[in-house]
Amino acid sequence: MIVDIINKKRLGQELSYHELDVFFNGYLDGKVKDYQMSSLLMAICIQGMTDEEIFSLTKIFIDSGDTLDLSFLSGVTVDKHSTGGIGDKTTLIITPIVASLGVPVLKMSGRGLGYTGGTIDKLESIPGFRIDLSDEEVMHQVEDIGIVITGQTASLAPMDKKIYALRDVTGTVSSIPLIASSIMSKKIAAGADKILIDIKVGNGALLQTREDAEKLSDLMIKIGKFYQKEVRTIISDMNVPLGFCIGNSLEVVEAIKVLQGQEQDNNLTRLCLDLASEMICMSKGVSKQEAIDMVLDTIHSGRAYQKFLELVRAQNGKIDLLSTSKKVKTIKAFRSGVIESISAIDLGKLSVALGAGRMTMEDTIDYGVGLELLKQVGDSVQKGDDLLKIYYKKMPNLPDFEQIFLIK
Amino acid sequence: MIVDIINKKRLGQELSYHELDVFFNGYLDGKVKDYQMSSLLMAICIQGMTDEEIFSLTKIFIDSGDTLDLSFLSGVTVDKHSTGGIGDKTTLIITPIVASLGVPVLKMSGRGLGYTGGTIDKLESIPGFRIDLSDEEVMHQVEDIGIVITGQTASLAPMDKKIYALRDVTGTVSSIPLIASSIMSKKIAAGADKILIDIKVGNGALLQTREDAEKLSDLMIKIGKFYQKEVRTIISDMNVPLGFCIGNSLEVVEAIKVLQGQEQDNNLTRLCLDLASEMICMSKGVSKQEAIDMVLDTIHSGRAYQKFLELVRAQNGKIDLLSTSKKVKTIKAFRSGVIESISAIDLGKLSVALGAGRMTMEDTIDYGVGLELLKQVGDSVQKGDDLLKIYYKKMPNLPDFEQIFLIK
Repeated sequence: MIVDIINKKRLGQELSYHELDVFFNGYLDGKVKDYQMSSLLMAICIQGMTDEEIFSLTKIFIDSGDTLDLSFLSGVTVDKHSTGGIGDKTTLIITPIVASLGVPVLKMSGRGLGYTGGTIDKLESIPGFRIDLSDEEVMHQVEDIGIVITGQTASLAPMDKKIYALRDVTGTVSSIPLIASSIMSKKIAAGADKILIDIKVGNGALLQTREDAEKLSDLMIKIGKFYQKEVRTIISDMNVPLGFCIGNSLEVVEAIKVLQGQEQDNNLTRLCLDLASEMICMSKGVSKQEAIDMVLDTIHSGRAYQKFLELVRAQNGKIDLLSTSKKVKTIKAFRSGVIESISAIDLGKLSVALGAGRMTMEDTIDYGVGLELLKQVGDSVQKGDDLLKIYYKKMPNLPDFEQIFLIK
Repeated sequence: MIVDIINKKRLGQELSYHELDVFFNGYLDGKVKDYQMSSLLMAICIQGMTDEEIFSLTKIFIDSGDTLDLSFLSGVTVDKHSTGGIGDKTTLIITPIVASLGVPVLKMSGRGLGYTGGTIDKLESIPGFRIDLSDEEVMHQVEDIGIVITGQTASLAPMDKKIYALRDVTGTVSSIPLIASSIMSKKIAAGADKILIDIKVGNGALLQTREDAEKLSDLMIKIGKFYQKEVRTIISDMNVPLGFCIGNSLEVVEAIKVLQGQEQDNNLTRLCLDLASEMICMSKGVSKQEAIDMVLDTIHSGRAYQKFLELVRAQNGKIDLLSTSKKVKTIKAFRSGVIESISAIDLGKLSVALGAGRMTMEDTIDYGVGLELLKQVGDSVQKGDDLLKIYYKKMPNLPDFEQIFLIK
């Protein structure tokens, strides 16, 4: 009985595969109601899940839809996922890099929700860019040019999609077992041989502590083992925005600069180098140093950027038409000193207020608006120096920037 | 924001009066959805509530509806509530007793749900008995004959009613703070000067341990203090059914026997004596022994039973037409020995299977069916002695009686 299953988890007891199956598939069938699912999800959030339960739930999510077969691709395929951060445009950068080195990339990405952006939204800021490719088009393109980035198809782990929407409105997002099952079910169904996960931790991320990030990492690796898929994780900081830009077309412009080798050493370029070289290691079995050299070489030779342009052309994007808002306001440093921190969450909130992100799936996005940092953590500034550019259409109430930029 | 409130409780933090007010009144208004309320309720079940939160929630429940003013009644009014048990017909017995001693009784009772019966269902087994009295009729009757028992009016603590229905299907019934707020809000809104609570503990009750029962007792007394109402509690056993009969008209017949002084000393008569004398103490300020003597006297003089008949007549009941099912099956003792226990929960389940109770509010009840115990705990039996009579319309699958009656 449905209520007995909820009661069992409320008391912190382990649910069997059968109980989870009855409950979660009952939800898809409409026999279990929204208010019963949210009650169970909250009990899971607080009481946790055993490894067995997490494996069961992941399997139930995967079995709710199709699983892609990528065995027709030559080479070891590596999928990459980020738990989401502010200014995180790494997918736009590292997928062309690894594709240009012969690692096939079939990447399914999501839209942004809350303060973190989504790769699909960023790509849609390129006029004409298609993210609604058919399964045939996806398979054809990855065989043809070795890279495709598309929206999550409805046929992969559809149960996770339905449940995520409920979690979002019922305060049940922050459960490490639920996060692990949700991500891993989608990644395993997407069919890559190996999986690299970028786990963000900090005020601008789902996880606030290194300890939680390590728990999630352990769980994902265990789920991978259960499915005989190698999973590696990188835990990266999300107290500070990644790179200089937040907002869809602004982030595409920044990604292009990194792919063109125009950017200096910063938190974005460092993370991209780490992630891309890790994917190369996993796919090709080379050493980390060899992989790093290969990544730097493919950037400096221009091949990585060429692969990006191939991707955009293949999906009908008109990169020349990419544009950012013409209305720009510059925020100046309010004192002299060294920038000690820049709050990711606060700039994420401001970017949503500008219209660069959405708080509900029904909100629409302004692709051209956003934020451009002109300084980074560690930089010295003089009072009155330019600190931040705001690209806007309609200016929202501005926050207190002295709270966002800690200058000492 | 609604989700922030849920997240706060998920993390075990205290909610302010304002936050609880926004959330719970938002639920009545439809702004907070069922799936959000059930998520918060589950978080409350697991994380608990502080005393401040419980006082706030009780106040919000009370303020969601009307509060009765009983000041027109002479004497100190005492309300009584039971947390629900199997075979619990004490209300039918003690309210005429105390009313016959001059304590005015305006009792609002509920229907049964799950394995425990409801006073209203039992009264409805008396043909013609009206439980849908108007407020005017209620007030008139209590002034006129000093006793009225009616269904919960929709205007008292309507929020609690809506939330209880949701708790029932979302595994969020067993929360001591929620139980305390729910009961106390209804009792305080019902306007009596003092309140006596019979807290059941055992396999046939909501609470399984003495420790939980004591926690609930403490909380109810604290809530009473907050509202300057004296609250007393009695913690009573519910591992064994109360008295001999389970089932609606069977229980009325048994209540009448107790009121007529025909029953010997047993767990039902002892509890009724304790509860009724406690109500007399609370109302009249006499000693326990004086109160006990008064109760025994009003029974033996016939006044208590006369008051019961007055009540039934006033509410249009035809006591002569009360009937039980004519189809009866007798279960015999399967061995000789002493009865060590009789499982309340198992007999409760059997009575529901017979049709004497309901599992959802939509189920209908057969008033004439039920169970009559022919022996009690402590009795010696010979193999083949009559143990239990089953009054049925359609015989359900019978349980293993060797599991229900422990004979050693």
